[in-house]
Amino acid sequence: MLASTALVCLMVPGLALFYGGMVAAKSVLNMIMMTFGSVALVGCIWVVYGYSASFGDSIGGAGILGDVTEYFGLSGVMKDDPKAVIPLSVFAAFQALFAALTAALICGAISDRIKFGAWMAFTGIWVTLVYLPVAHWVFAFDGENVVGGWIVNKLGAIDFAGGTAVHINSGAAALAVILVLGKRIGWQKGAKNGERPHNLPLVMLGAGLLWFGWFGFNGGSALTSSNAASVVVLNTFTATCSAMLGWLVVEKLRDGHPTSLGAASGAIAGLVAITPSCGAVSPLGALALGAIGGAVCALAVGLKYKFGYDDSLDVVGIHLVGGVTGTLLVGILGTADAPNGVDGLLYGGGLSLLGKQAVGAFAVLAYSFGMTWLIAKVLDKTMGLRVRPEVEQEGVDVHLHAESAYDLTHSPTTAPTPEPAAAG
Amino acid sequence: MLASTALVCLMVPGLALFYGGMVAAKSVLNMIMMTFGSVALVGCIWVVYGYSASFGDSIGGAGILGDVTEYFGLSGVMKDDPKAVIPLSVFAAFQALFAALTAALICGAISDRIKFGAWMAFTGIWVTLVYLPVAHWVFAFDGENVVGGWIVNKLGAIDFAGGTAVHINSGAAALAVILVLGKRIGWQKGAKNGERPHNLPLVMLGAGLLWFGWFGFNGGSALTSSNAASVVVLNTFTATCSAMLGWLVVEKLRDGHPTSLGAASGAIAGLVAITPSCGAVSPLGALALGAIGGAVCALAVGLKYKFGYDDSLDVVGIHLVGGVTGTLLVGILGTADAPNGVDGLLYGGGLSLLGKQAVGAFAVLAYSFGMTWLIAKVLDKTMGLRVRPEVEQEGVDVHLHAESAYDLTHSPTTAPTPEPAAAG
Amino acid sequence: MLASTALVCLMVPGLALFYGGMVAAKSVLNMIMMTFGSVALVGCIWVVYGYSASFGDSIGGAGILGDVTEYFGLSGVMKDDPKAVIPLSVFAAFQALFAALTAALICGAISDRIKFGAWMAFTGIWVTLVYLPVAHWVFAFDGENVVGGWIVNKLGAIDFAGGTAVHINSGAAALAVILVLGKRIGWQKGAKNGERPHNLPLVMLGAGLLWFGWFGFNGGSALTSSNAASVVVLNTFTATCSAMLGWLVVEKLRDGHPTSLGAASGAIAGLVAITPSCGAVSPLGALALGAIGGAVCALAVGLKYKFGYDDSLDVVGIHLVGGVTGTLLVGILGTADAPNGVDGLLYGGGLSLLGKQAVGAFAVLAYSFGMTWLIAKVLDKTMGLRVRPEVEQEGVDVHLHAESAYDLTHSPTTAPTPEPAAAG
Repeated sequence: MLASTALVCLMVPGLALFYGGMVAAKSVLNMIMMTFGSVALVGCIWVVYGYSASFGDSIGGAGILGDVTEYFGLSGVMKDDPKAVIPLSVFAAFQALFAALTAALICGAISDRIKFGAWMAFTGIWVTLVYLPVAHWVFAFDGENVVGGWIVNKLGAIDFAGGTAVHINSGAAALAVILVLGKRIGWQKGAKNGERPHNLPLVMLGAGLLWFGWFGFNGGSALTSSNAASVVVLNTFTATCSAMLGWLVVEKLRDGHPTSLGAASGAIAGLVAITPSCGAVSPLGALALGAIGGAVCALAVGLKYKFGYDDSLDVVGIHLVGGVTGTLLVGILGTADAPNGVDGLLYGGGLSLLGKQAVGAFAVLAYSFGMTWLIAKVLDKTMGLRVRPEVEQEGVDVHLHAESAYDLTHSPTTAPTPEPAAAG
Repeated sequence: MLASTALVCLMVPGLALFYGGMVAAKSVLNMIMMTFGSVALVGCIWVVYGYSASFGDSIGGAGILGDVTEYFGLSGVMKDDPKAVIPLSVFAAFQALFAALTAALICGAISDRIKFGAWMAFTGIWVTLVYLPVAHWVFAFDGENVVGGWIVNKLGAIDFAGGTAVHINSGAAALAVILVLGKRIGWQKGAKNGERPHNLPLVMLGAGLLWFGWFGFNGGSALTSSNAASVVVLNTFTATCSAMLGWLVVEKLRDGHPTSLGAASGAIAGLVAITPSCGAVSPLGALALGAIGGAVCALAVGLKYKFGYDDSLDVVGIHLVGGVTGTLLVGILGTADAPNGVDGLLYGGGLSLLGKQAVGAFAVLAYSFGMTWLIAKVLDKTMGLRVRPEVEQEGVDVHLHAESAYDLTHSPTTAPTPEPAAAG
Repeated sequence: MLASTALVCLMVPGLALFYGGMVAAKSVLNMIMMTFGSVALVGCIWVVYGYSASFGDSIGGAGILGDVTEYFGLSGVMKDDPKAVIPLSVFAAFQALFAALTAALICGAISDRIKFGAWMAFTGIWVTLVYLPVAHWVFAFDGENVVGGWIVNKLGAIDFAGGTAVHINSGAAALAVILVLGKRIGWQKGAKNGERPHNLPLVMLGAGLLWFGWFGFNGGSALTSSNAASVVVLNTFTATCSAMLGWLVVEKLRDGHPTSLGAASGAIAGLVAITPSCGAVSPLGALALGAIGGAVCALAVGLKYKFGYDDSLDVVGIHLVGGVTGTLLVGILGTADAPNGVDGLLYGGGLSLLGKQAVGAFAVLAYSFGMTWLIAKVLDKTMGLRVRPEVEQEGVDVHLHAESAYDLTHSPTTAPTPEPAAAG
């Protein structure tokens, strides 16, 4: 668990660079700042009241929201409880990163056009009103004398590591914010457009760090280093490989070339799809699930041009669509041999599990989209979300952060001709 | 083991960036794609039949190849066996990465000139015909009612984490592919030439990630977090430090300057050399072994100019030469105090161990070189390996992947002059 | 512990890139080389006599220096001792990285102007004369029949993971070297000047890797994966988040813009401040401590312009000031509920602990500053520390390492127009 927590923390720079490499050179720092900034703010909120709202005893036993006072300020979290499977403090730290990363995922959809202060305000409100309750629904198990959330306990949907609470949640929220915020200047419906990635090696590095960190994300969700965690790690690796191939095959057939952006996106799509399902399927199931997830998302990222929403870095196309795909496929590819122990449609389990998965996915999608739209709208009417047009066109890095990413003027462009060795 | 598996997974972007930074800016994405692509493909093959061919019961008890049907599709791998030292699923995931990385190592030798489809086809065939049997020889221990591979059991050579199966194997294969594929246009025997690295910080980052991941690679090969794993980690760290110094000293004496490329290469050379030997030597032995490995490889990378094979990023000079060096030095510097518990020549063990090491190293070298040459030749005659000359000269990134790595046009080259703070 | 050791090893490229991204493009490789080079050298020294001098039985029971002969060459370190909490070999490897990183931290203060050979010589002497004794004072606990260092045992100051031995030590040493070495050409007292960072995404990546590795640095210092380590990880995460916000708020109020360099620096400042205190405070205490540390360091980095010492990358402003801040705050915010179990001033513990913390901090600061000044002065008079002015102005990369960091000439600046798909 300690190692898993550290691994998930490496997803912070992983996500920052994955997103940062994909935008233009004039807005990479803002993208990185939105990621780091939201993580920092959510981390602080988590300590004060976030953990308690997600994992405290359910208010009124309703399964809607945890008791904010129970662990306010993470009081009592340092006590060594010999009966606990893992210390409460490491669980709190692990889950802090889930909250922080879910909020940070959203910023990929709205590059180049949101005020930094508005983003920070949005992050704080969104985590409070959207993430904390949804995490309670999905992650808070019933315990001895403790009532948890409705999706995991009453409905009984399977979401191993956050297909709903993390990916559908952030993807639906991203769509809502996009609709309030509007398109980038010059971005047009109907044509493939927008900035090309300014630094693809950075994107690949980010994807690699995310892949690595995701082992902690999924594996740590098994809580202990048991057989379950092992199966989860194997499935996570397998689905990523097949998803990468799935995306590249779609690209090759559709566009004629497999791209590095496609490989990175395919890997992330596979990781998203296996997140809810990593404890429910067999390795062969993970192979199929990854391939399907990769191919579906490769097709889904084209939707924004068709419907005209400017999802800058495909948060909707990958996290919402991949999250829904993975969550539903649990109901089809789930097998009782896997740690979750429930058969899906293909293994003779009937439609029951698939129905629960659909209800869980839809509930999170609908709540997140609706509530996020409301938050964004209120912020837009009050403090204003969008930067002025000249800020957007000249670049948010210089205007909002008084910095630019690169200064390569001193780098010689010809081969170096050093002086003799004795010199230095 | 779970942490080790994650660590080894970070070697994927580590290798991709280490290689990617060393090529020209026009082929960095192709290099990254060859790495990620082969990992994805080998990962899928591993789940379907690879693990079984390497770790299944030896066919006919011959120690040559495992039974492909035993674990076909990794069936049965999810069962929780209380008697197992570690769950089968995490061992399968860990070893999947060994297979994937070994194949990926080869691409560093053949930058700028191979078709992407041909590389993917080569990878799939090579893993099947070369890696799977060799891994069986070296990594499959005899068990209760199970017969393993001939090198580890019958011969009794020591290869802790893959000096033969990983490094000699990939290095010999690289040499064979180079000979079939030919030199890059303009590359000449007799003079130090070829592209200079386009991004050395990326190379250093890649080396750093590889160093980190290698702790998982070597440490995880002890299977449990025991004293053995601790010694292995200490030796791995020590040899890397002394190898870096060894390489830099050779450079300083020979060329007058210690370079960052030399520091990175020295670190990798040390890691390669300590891979087979990390459980066989003392910390002082690791210090010596690293220094020797670093110095030998620093000299060996010059051989390509002398003999005229275009080993783009020195896969032969580092992995083949470093692997042979480390494997043989086990027979000299091995001490019974170390986890492997066998004395080498210097510790009074005589020539016996050295002989076994030589036989193991030579067997893998010869098989890998011969079989790989055959595979490459057949592929070249059928689908064709090499891109057209204009593709090579204009750059494989644009031609094969329809992408280019960087777009820094929007990055201001002068200090930013932001507007007043109230603006954004 | 094994995982922690690996994590700390990733701090090597983390630090190299954090520092490397902040200098100009003409000296990034030298900065990376100083980091890797000192780590390699210190790693070798550690194996030979370093560990023994720090963790051997105190000479004469004085608590000043360990017995160099006890573990010379790390002899006996491979034996499996069933009574040991953790194997000696992994503790030696873990502590090797502490020594290596502490030395490497110093180079951030002296970019662009020191000979590489002089830096390596300085590193070797400094570790021997400064780090090894100080580590003995702070990290060597008394044991059965073994006497440890005076600060941790006799004085009883709390320094969980190296606020004094690592951060105050390196920060004070950096200040001393700067004073001997002098300013960069053109650097002026009284005005904000010096090169702007050449690659801020690299800085953010470096900060992210450091953050990740720091979990191993602090968490591993609890030695076993117990409740203490969990609290430490939670506190480390929390303080980093609040420190980032603390720094950004100071920037916003003072300069009008929150910068990415500020976010990265704030994160590191928080990590420095929580290093001595991560086992002594509650999560809410960590929240406060981080915010204070971030804000104080944000103000402290301006001191160099006022007092006129050219601390290139703010090693003094962050490590010395942050280390002192965190070490003293233990005496104020410490709570008996935390793993260290001692109340500070705010929790009714009186001034006793604060006094001990101040003595420990001052002792390390004074010894490190004085001894380092002497070492630097002697080296300057003998071999000479500083490069010639033209080397400094044209760039240390080309002159000292015969390399330059980037060659982006082959990167197309317009969107790629690939040939039809069938071509490659």
